[in-house]
Amino acid sequence: MEGDPTLRLRVFDLNCWAIRYLSKRRQERVQLIGDTLRREGFDLVLLQEVWSERDYSDLKVKLGSCYPFSHYFRSGVIGSGLCVFSQFPILDTLLYQYSLNGYPYMLQHGDWFCGKSVGLDRWWHGSVTTTLSPSCQLHAEYCREKDAYLPHRLVQAWELAQFIRHTSKAADVVLVGGDLNMHPEDVGIRLLRGWTGLRDAFTEATRFEGCEDGCTLVPNNCFTIKSELLPFPLGIRIDYILYKAISSFTVKCEELKTTTGTAPGMDIPFSDHEAVMATLQIRRQGQAGGDALGTAEVTLADAVTEARTEVGVGLRAAQRQRYSTGRMAVLALLLLLLQAAAALGTLAGLGAEQPFPKLSFTLLAFLAIGVLLLATGLHLFHTMEVKMLQGTEEQMRMALRALQEHP
Amino acid sequence: MEGDPTLRLRVFDLNCWAIRYLSKRRQERVQLIGDTLRREGFDLVLLQEVWSERDYSDLKVKLGSCYPFSHYFRSGVIGSGLCVFSQFPILDTLLYQYSLNGYPYMLQHGDWFCGKSVGLDRWWHGSVTTTLSPSCQLHAEYCREKDAYLPHRLVQAWELAQFIRHTSKAADVVLVGGDLNMHPEDVGIRLLRGWTGLRDAFTEATRFEGCEDGCTLVPNNCFTIKSELLPFPLGIRIDYILYKAISSFTVKCEELKTTTGTAPGMDIPFSDHEAVMATLQIRRQGQAGGDALGTAEVTLADAVTEARTEVGVGLRAAQRQRYSTGRMAVLALLLLLLQAAAALGTLAGLGAEQPFPKLSFTLLAFLAIGVLLLATGLHLFHTMEVKMLQGTEEQMRMALRALQEHP
Repeated sequence: MEGDPTLRLRVFDLNCWAIRYLSKRRQERVQLIGDTLRREGFDLVLLQEVWSERDYSDLKVKLGSCYPFSHYFRSGVIGSGLCVFSQFPILDTLLYQYSLNGYPYMLQHGDWFCGKSVGLDRWWHGSVTTTLSPSCQLHAEYCREKDAYLPHRLVQAWELAQFIRHTSKAADVVLVGGDLNMHPEDVGIRLLRGWTGLRDAFTEATRFEGCEDGCTLVPNNCFTIKSELLPFPLGIRIDYILYKAISSFTVKCEELKTTTGTAPGMDIPFSDHEAVMATLQIRRQGQAGGDALGTAEVTLADAVTEARTEVGVGLRAAQRQRYSTGRMAVLALLLLLLQAAAALGTLAGLGAEQPFPKLSFTLLAFLAIGVLLLATGLHLFHTMEVKMLQGTEEQMRMALRALQEHP
Repeated sequence: MEGDPTLRLRVFDLNCWAIRYLSKRRQERVQLIGDTLRREGFDLVLLQEVWSERDYSDLKVKLGSCYPFSHYFRSGVIGSGLCVFSQFPILDTLLYQYSLNGYPYMLQHGDWFCGKSVGLDRWWHGSVTTTLSPSCQLHAEYCREKDAYLPHRLVQAWELAQFIRHTSKAADVVLVGGDLNMHPEDVGIRLLRGWTGLRDAFTEATRFEGCEDGCTLVPNNCFTIKSELLPFPLGIRIDYILYKAISSFTVKCEELKTTTGTAPGMDIPFSDHEAVMATLQIRRQGQAGGDALGTAEVTLADAVTEARTEVGVGLRAAQRQRYSTGRMAVLALLLLLLQAAAALGTLAGLGAEQPFPKLSFTLLAFLAIGVLLLATGLHLFHTMEVKMLQGTEEQMRMALRALQEHP
């Protein structure tokens, strides 16, 4: 870049949907993804939902020659599923695990077990540009009409935004790629973009090629669940490439592409999500640029207010659950104490020979112990949830004050 | 600072040992801390182990007039215990919860429930300096000879160092205050200081006044457990103020003080830890300074290697525990299946009337269910532990390679 003032960066982002035993035709698709990446030679590849470390290792072996640098982010029980392949040296990595990520007892949704995180790679391109590329995935949306996870997803969007704000000063360019599980007009996206100044590659791209409206979950992908997309005949856009320049650089999106239901030249798709591919043009400029927020600040304040209201709703729900699980634990404890008193009374010969049948008495005691343990565990979990929601609400309040005081 | 090129910053750091119902004379001490802080008028106050939000609120009310800006970091079941009071506006906060922090079943140590974290405040002093002041506490050391928590503490020290590296570019000066639960020569401290370039206020101070060797856990504090300090007749130094300048600034520690077993002019101490008070001189200089690491890099590589070895030891222990809890869960499941088969056999009239006494049969089934649930929970926990230790080891490997390649 020293001679040529323009750098062209080709970025690939995909939610791979590679869950062992559950995802359809997983191995075949991972192989296909590997072949395509090797053929296309992107500069940076951000992958999500690579849940099996084996798949990552296979990809690493296959891509070793063209992407000599890679990193797999480990977290949670199953993992974060995030990995990154790069043609340029990765200087440093950092993993930030979101403080809230669903409920451990919602086994059918399973987000809690994944340890969803944002993984940050600081890498070095040529002799000038240091690029930060957080790869991330937020909590899934299972029901848009009655979205019980909205407060958790907003906490994650806020934490992601804060994480990017605080870490991005170490870079010239920030690139974020990931499955954000939010539609473009959703409050979480407005919050993330407003608070960080990130630009959306789809809306900024000079040329676009791919699914209509840039959708990444489309009905003509054979792996998507058609009933879930009924209200959205074109599909939905939930996978993004976002970017901004920090210091004396400018970034422009020359071209954005998505796959369109099948992998190029194949009869099956890479995943149930479409891949997003951006060509970015990075230029050094004389004056420090800095993305002007200015007029956008009113909309940002609106987004923060809206998000704070939703977090408040989640907080009150969490407080109710903390209260009811606490009450349940106390009741179970009282039942146990009552039983212990009755048993002691019988032993001491105070009552008649055997007032209760032994078996049901024991069963009841075990039931009470079970309920006590479960309710205590849930109470502790919801106590943590309340603390984190309160903390986020407080941070948002502080941000709103700062926005009002320094407009 | 625009006119005068030198800024003097007075920082107060204390582990308050304010655990409701457990810490001795808590309310009296919190009141005493509040009175002293109001009288002394420090610029920045970093407190740890303020576990009760009520104590924080009381302090906030009392200190409102002289420290108009404050923040309480919420996390975990009990909280992070971290709070900060400042004379200058807090622009932004970020909480990073360590990925490992002891074991939930070690109830007597209780670290797991605290959600230990590093809380970062970005604040603004005058028209020039932005200061980052992470306040933090690492996992306690319960037995120095056989320190089962060393790998977890090292993961925390590494995460703290990484967090500081990645966030500090947004500031002119970085100040870290906290109870690091490590002696000055311990590998974790060497790692943290080497990897971040932070300087230790005690070793750099021009003037020092306080306990010998700067100790912060001393035998003549009436709340310390004397038997634990037997091998260290002078006490130990585990509370630190660390600092560094990032951009075109220099920081010098003019004076460092510690309390000496009692609060100044009183007959009781603030806490079981001594308070650390630093006066720092911050100067703008023409050229960007940047703390030279240079010759220290060999020692840094040693520290990273040593830490990586310890993390590896922890990893193997965690893998063994994951295996044994997994085996236990499988055995409990087998027992349950066997019982189910026997019960079905009896119901179907295959066996004799009633081969087992009903009560012991039921008790055994409940026992098996209990063991199955417990072992599964522990298996999941140790799986997460393995993942985080692997992740840290991998990051350290990457750091070592970078140190070797760019010496």
